[in-house]
Amino acid sequence: MGSREFSRGKRVVARLPFGGDLLAEIGAVADAHHMQTAEVRAIGALSEARLAFYDQTAKTYAEFAVEGQVELLALIGNVSRRDGATAVHVHATLCGHDGAALGGHVVPGCRVFACELVLQELVGEPLERALDEVTGLPLWRGL
Amino acid sequence: MGSREFSRGKRVVARLPFGGDLLAEIGAVADAHHMQTAEVRAIGALSEARLAFYDQTAKTYAEFAVEGQVELLALIGNVSRRDGATAVHVHATLCGHDGAALGGHVVPGCRVFACELVLQELVGEPLERALDEVTGLPLWRGL
Amino acid sequence: MGSREFSRGKRVVARLPFGGDLLAEIGAVADAHHMQTAEVRAIGALSEARLAFYDQTAKTYAEFAVEGQVELLALIGNVSRRDGATAVHVHATLCGHDGAALGGHVVPGCRVFACELVLQELVGEPLERALDEVTGLPLWRGL
Repeated sequence: MGSREFSRGKRVVARLPFGGDLLAEIGAVADAHHMQTAEVRAIGALSEARLAFYDQTAKTYAEFAVEGQVELLALIGNVSRRDGATAVHVHATLCGHDGAALGGHVVPGCRVFACELVLQELVGEPLERALDEVTGLPLWRGL
Repeated sequence: MGSREFSRGKRVVARLPFGGDLLAEIGAVADAHHMQTAEVRAIGALSEARLAFYDQTAKTYAEFAVEGQVELLALIGNVSRRDGATAVHVHATLCGHDGAALGGHVVPGCRVFACELVLQELVGEPLERALDEVTGLPLWRGL
Repeated sequence: MGSREFSRGKRVVARLPFGGDLLAEIGAVADAHHMQTAEVRAIGALSEARLAFYDQTAKTYAEFAVEGQVELLALIGNVSRRDGATAVHVHATLCGHDGAALGGHVVPGCRVFACELVLQELVGEPLERALDEVTGLPLWRGL
């Protein structure tokens, strides 16, 4: 187990643009406010959604498209660094018109209908992702 | 896209009263602590629940009642202002006795069995909602 | 209704160990950083999961095992005190390979595949749990 203490930095509230790609827009807010490490929280609605499930045995993500319009019930995750670039890692819980919930790891292809986002910057040695051999995932190194 | 930086204000933890209306009780905590803009997070259980799904084409919310007692898995959202009043906008993820999850936009009619709430005040120019023509939703103006 | 203001303390980011028990590992991070009261947020994946649903009429938790590997879509909750010990109270929203979401109150038996955790310490008079007669739950006393 590894853990590290961070100082709090800027706290930014954003309204993401209609029609934007969820993942790209979060990264753009982080970059615009010069955040290297941050917590991500959001709610809203998506006109299209695309998610992924990680197969822990095969060590590969399987992507799938979500049918129809959805509410974004909870978007939780973080911004850190990978190969010198901003890496947004967020999981979404969604629901359709009957309320049934589904979710997954957010990949490109989630189209914003409306999204109210909060980014809480974490100031300290930036968290950097690197391949973790055990899981096959890009986890934080040095933690 | 618009985003704005806020200073952190008060952080309040509340235990909502048994039998209270979830949405009204959150607003009451925000008002009691004089918060105009805040982040909302909670978990708990509800004895009754009522949610809504936004039809992005018809631009109307369709409300539905949830059957039976539910766990409140995640309540995420914010407090801001609308027409001079406190406006609580939160999305709930719930589950029934078999664990199956459902969710939606929280409307009046969610009855608190138990609820552990955190409000994080955001200090700055208050976020005000106004009708957004593109989505038909009361979104933050000036963002 | 009761609510109390807290000062912010340490903010800690942790990568939980592969194979660890989710609930125990969160408690270990809180203890390692000497936190008595804290907010908990996490995403990740679990190789095994075990959850509970609270029957509000019988006033008992019914535990159930979750089939197969799951994504941890959202883990929300808190750390407080009960009988002088660290008490972690968190609700998890999970999904399987088809994205269908399920969730519940987290009990021992959730095995970490990967987990990115944030603990935000809340400084003030520690929140202590005690049996609440109305609900049958260990709720915060004095709130």
